[in-house]
Amino acid sequence: MIWTAAFSIQTQLIASLPLPLPMMLAASAGTEGETYAKALAIGITLITAVVFIAAQVFGELTVLIGLPAVLGELIAGFVIGVSGLHLLVLNDGDQVAGWAVAVMQWFSGSDTATIQEIFAGPVKILLNDYAATGVAVLLFKIGLEADLKELIKVGPQAASVAVAGVLLPFVAGFFGLSALFNLGTIPAIFAAAALTATSIGITSRIMQDIGVLKTTEGQIILGAAVLDDILGIAILAVAVGIAEHGTVEVADVLGIIVSATLFVLGAIALNKFFGPRYINFLDRLNNPYSVLIGAIVFLSLMSIVAQAIGLEAILGCFAAGIVLGNTQATHTLEKACEPLVALFATVFFVSIGAKTDLTVLNLANPESRIGLIIAVFLIVVAIAGKLAAGYCVFTKSPVNRLAIGTGMVPRGEVGLVFAGLGAATGALSVSVNVAIVLMVIATTFVAPPMLRRVFAQKAQEA
Amino acid sequence: MIWTAAFSIQTQLIASLPLPLPMMLAASAGTEGETYAKALAIGITLITAVVFIAAQVFGELTVLIGLPAVLGELIAGFVIGVSGLHLLVLNDGDQVAGWAVAVMQWFSGSDTATIQEIFAGPVKILLNDYAATGVAVLLFKIGLEADLKELIKVGPQAASVAVAGVLLPFVAGFFGLSALFNLGTIPAIFAAAALTATSIGITSRIMQDIGVLKTTEGQIILGAAVLDDILGIAILAVAVGIAEHGTVEVADVLGIIVSATLFVLGAIALNKFFGPRYINFLDRLNNPYSVLIGAIVFLSLMSIVAQAIGLEAILGCFAAGIVLGNTQATHTLEKACEPLVALFATVFFVSIGAKTDLTVLNLANPESRIGLIIAVFLIVVAIAGKLAAGYCVFTKSPVNRLAIGTGMVPRGEVGLVFAGLGAATGALSVSVNVAIVLMVIATTFVAPPMLRRVFAQKAQEA
Repeated sequence: MIWTAAFSIQTQLIASLPLPLPMMLAASAGTEGETYAKALAIGITLITAVVFIAAQVFGELTVLIGLPAVLGELIAGFVIGVSGLHLLVLNDGDQVAGWAVAVMQWFSGSDTATIQEIFAGPVKILLNDYAATGVAVLLFKIGLEADLKELIKVGPQAASVAVAGVLLPFVAGFFGLSALFNLGTIPAIFAAAALTATSIGITSRIMQDIGVLKTTEGQIILGAAVLDDILGIAILAVAVGIAEHGTVEVADVLGIIVSATLFVLGAIALNKFFGPRYINFLDRLNNPYSVLIGAIVFLSLMSIVAQAIGLEAILGCFAAGIVLGNTQATHTLEKACEPLVALFATVFFVSIGAKTDLTVLNLANPESRIGLIIAVFLIVVAIAGKLAAGYCVFTKSPVNRLAIGTGMVPRGEVGLVFAGLGAATGALSVSVNVAIVLMVIATTFVAPPMLRRVFAQKAQEA
Repeated sequence: MIWTAAFSIQTQLIASLPLPLPMMLAASAGTEGETYAKALAIGITLITAVVFIAAQVFGELTVLIGLPAVLGELIAGFVIGVSGLHLLVLNDGDQVAGWAVAVMQWFSGSDTATIQEIFAGPVKILLNDYAATGVAVLLFKIGLEADLKELIKVGPQAASVAVAGVLLPFVAGFFGLSALFNLGTIPAIFAAAALTATSIGITSRIMQDIGVLKTTEGQIILGAAVLDDILGIAILAVAVGIAEHGTVEVADVLGIIVSATLFVLGAIALNKFFGPRYINFLDRLNNPYSVLIGAIVFLSLMSIVAQAIGLEAILGCFAAGIVLGNTQATHTLEKACEPLVALFATVFFVSIGAKTDLTVLNLANPESRIGLIIAVFLIVVAIAGKLAAGYCVFTKSPVNRLAIGTGMVPRGEVGLVFAGLGAATGALSVSVNVAIVLMVIATTFVAPPMLRRVFAQKAQEA
């Protein structure tokens, strides 16, 4: 209430400021179309600055207290989005905060209706597309980093942890949500699918930071996280497919599972027979960015093929990464993707936060209390499921099973992908979506200190 | 005619193909909104692939025959745009080719009207925004590369060439176009302004390729090209400002010149007092991409300030590059911008080609013949003006004045920026726009072999 009042005073203040001189000239001389184009250009530029400043500030704050920056980007979304300042509006029907419209009016000389129209139309289209570009490049990069040879070397250990780490949380989550909370099949599948993910990016960075990446446990965690990503994205494709078809047809589910499997196996085969040849061909071209541009073209085509056979576009991006991974250009491509991920994936994470309406978590509201309880259930299953998977590791030599399970706990960006896509299909109620986001935050939040502790214990034993 | 007939046969063939199975399921089960979202996602992905494939193929072909790749990207635009296949439609009222709509129908299951609507609406918004992002990052990078210390070292020589190289073509172009072709003030200013540009990117790459960048002539060309960019963009801001205000008010022109000068001088001052401190601050942050994200935020703010005081957004991007140039992070930023420029500036160059309607160059049409004659005049002034500027170099030591003038000839991407922005303001008739594009093509085309020859002559003399 105090905030709202403060903003309404600011709105009046801004409206009473004199226009800068050239703006007055432009407002008197310019045509309607020119004013619109100017307001659009300034609107896009301002919102870009706001998104990146918020991401940077909150990313920095979370890193300062020892947490991954991705959490800060999510919090930045909460602050500037529908739960907070209403600067970034990505849900249908939401309006930009009045004081922000007043700032835009001052800069562009447009009227309130035009500015709201710009934010509800082209600006929303662009931000959603930037976010989609971000998640596409991110999953391409995760695919590139998915070292298949590494996985084959760590062999059955990684596979056993990955399969157990996907099955245990999924089965416990799905039946628990259905039985305890009476959730429908589709939301239960989405929420359970989000429980299966392991963030290869966050996990590997944490392990690198505390210097355990090269240990046996570290290698098993990495291998299992890679396989987990493949299994998780296949499960995600199934979940989205089911949500889009409306009903659970066994033939459909089997069809999707078979095509997902064939698609991923096809990608692995293409990695052997096509990837290196394609990269060699691109490398011989004269344009120094042929490899990057050729990779984006391949990513686009794989994404279209994935969509044409009924899978999600991002599975195509991930598969494109698998195909072009382990080639002479993998490192170059990873480097070239880094600035793209740094910019566009940031928009993706901030926009997930901005779309999430945290105000439903109002303890006076009974529906909201259910959301909180679901979140607590999801968090318990998420942590217990991965820790149990660590004890399922198939090996005779002594390993720190608790450390392996702990390494699989952070859901990170992969969990957020599930939440965002689930919300986009309209299959998830607001409270289930918030519960998933809280589960992702909690697991990503709790993993780094836990991991430091369990690896330290092992060092003492040795 | 044969092409049109071939495409109409293809359209029937594609329409008669069976839908892939999941598409049929989706078409029967999906709601209207889902079909639209799917068609939009596939449309964006397909057009992205088409743009990059065309850019890559024609870029490669031009490089094979010894010309810069940017020409190939322009030609790619001619081929897939309004002059050719009608796959990339960026002008109001243009429609996508029927056979491409049939392909989209086959992939997405949408109807013709929806697909045309998607290409006329969100896809056009996205491509225009990608192009704007491309030119913003490109001019930021040119600003970063504008080594002010270098320019001060080469001193009066570079300045004399730059000033003469801007004034001679501008004055000859403006009065020639007004007197000989009876052109209006605004189109004459735009066309003359396009004559002043020198492509620092193309010039420096050509000189690096033939190994003369470190010669005295090479240094003078580089310094003059840097100053030329500043002068050219200031002139561009004046031209756009005048076009937007509709009339040539001396007070307005002076105001724009003063604010452009203050803005550029302010950027140089900020480079000394703010840039290094800002980069130091960003460097101390924990996010490894703080410098890139902070630079994009600064670029956005400078672009808003430029627009708020009546200058073009791209002048803000260029100034942001100047401010953050010559700092410890300049190299990192240049590297991070490279993939962004490789992808988004490609969309910019292809889209300039795609918007340019070359079919007006029909020799049966008298207006079109005038366009060709204007192009010939522009080409002569463009080459003669820069060669004359080379002879104006202010120095007592013997230098290859012909080589210096030749090095300033290629207009490249900066000339295309003028053409694109001139077309966007609506100030240029189609034939003047085509004449500018032909002039840019001709100067960029003729410079590399000329430069090899004149530098070889010098080597023989030495």
